[in-house]
Amino acid sequence: MLYSSKENEKIKMVRKLHKKKYRDQQGLFLIEGEHLVLEAYKKGYIKELYLKKDTILPLDVPINYVTDDLLLYMSELDSPSPIIGVCYKLKPINELGNRILILDNIQNPGNLGTIIRSAVAFNIDTIILSKDTVDLYNSKVIRATQGLLFHVNIILSDIEEKIRELKKNNYHIYGTRVTHGKSLKSLEKKERFAIIMGNEGIGIKEEIKDLCDEFIYIKMNQNCESLNVGIATSIILYELDK
Amino acid sequence: MLYSSKENEKIKMVRKLHKKKYRDQQGLFLIEGEHLVLEAYKKGYIKELYLKKDTILPLDVPINYVTDDLLLYMSELDSPSPIIGVCYKLKPINELGNRILILDNIQNPGNLGTIIRSAVAFNIDTIILSKDTVDLYNSKVIRATQGLLFHVNIILSDIEEKIRELKKNNYHIYGTRVTHGKSLKSLEKKERFAIIMGNEGIGIKEEIKDLCDEFIYIKMNQNCESLNVGIATSIILYELDK
Repeated sequence: MLYSSKENEKIKMVRKLHKKKYRDQQGLFLIEGEHLVLEAYKKGYIKELYLKKDTILPLDVPINYVTDDLLLYMSELDSPSPIIGVCYKLKPINELGNRILILDNIQNPGNLGTIIRSAVAFNIDTIILSKDTVDLYNSKVIRATQGLLFHVNIILSDIEEKIRELKKNNYHIYGTRVTHGKSLKSLEKKERFAIIMGNEGIGIKEEIKDLCDEFIYIKMNQNCESLNVGIATSIILYELDK
Repeated sequence: MLYSSKENEKIKMVRKLHKKKYRDQQGLFLIEGEHLVLEAYKKGYIKELYLKKDTILPLDVPINYVTDDLLLYMSELDSPSPIIGVCYKLKPINELGNRILILDNIQNPGNLGTIIRSAVAFNIDTIILSKDTVDLYNSKVIRATQGLLFHVNIILSDIEEKIRELKKNNYHIYGTRVTHGKSLKSLEKKERFAIIMGNEGIGIKEEIKDLCDEFIYIKMNQNCESLNVGIATSIILYELDK
């Protein structure tokens, strides 16, 4: 079936998924491009695909074709990919594993995406996002993950409550701050841990800091006040990877 | 003096500095915001400042005032800062130091800026940019450096020639690739080294690879094909920092 009208209900539904409110209502989100679609497909997250006329993608999911104009209308990119996927939101699992990353109010979509990519690279089992973190299903976040959001358990939660639970279950809680912590290089590594990274401007919230067992800092030249949070997180996860 | 006309020659000159061609001709570039201006001032790079009417900034450099309209016209930002600085281009020094970072055709301005910030954090003495690298004075690069471009020696050069020179001077040349190298974690660290990082899509050019003494890779989970080059560079520089 080739769709060509913006008035079609299915097309309108896809377009609405640009907005968080509608993504939350429907439990769906959009991805664009072959690489992302293949990653989502491997994990069974594709509901249906919208392809540019004459594009061939032999996947066992419902496929719809759309005109170039419609593709541009449905896409969140200035130069749309010929492949748009409607995905089911990620299904978090209860088994958190031993290696947890907690993000407290990360606001920049590129930072969140990069952090998810690095978390997969360095074998994090579960990422817990505070409720004030930028939306995981924001298209810029998804693009920056390079599809790796489908390869790690991601949970949206009240992190204060969650950290209290983790402490009861003998997770070691690492916080981060710029000074007055233990240097990352001389850190004693724990097998079962959660590491908390904070907001770009203000770091970890005070009430969350109070729950930490130990603070880590990355030693650096005094001319540099701080690192980008995506960089800092990646370095810490690299070091904590056995 | 309060400027209000777009036709004024000085104002036209500033506006032209948005373009690389004119930056190169004049040996000047623009920075915006108090933090960047203060960093440039400390190092003596400010030629003159343009401030929004009634802004006070007690620095010992020529100061001009401009109307809000004119500020918007001169700025490269959608929401201009009240402070615009015209800077002299960085003066490279011949003494390269022992710790060198070479960038081969990095194209994303945010990546270049982030890499410069991390290079300062982890005590790199000199950054050598290949001639096909994105322009150092691009406003997005400068913003991403957070002002740290003023704290490290940066050279634009034919990197192939430069690497041959470094080899004669007993620098150990580290290359990077995704596989078939030495794991960063088990690397023997050299006191006098240059590390080469390559383009976002294709890595290090073949003719440059041939000049490397040793290749490094960052061990990661097989679900992750690669890291963002800003992240990978930062992790390597962190590890090479004693």
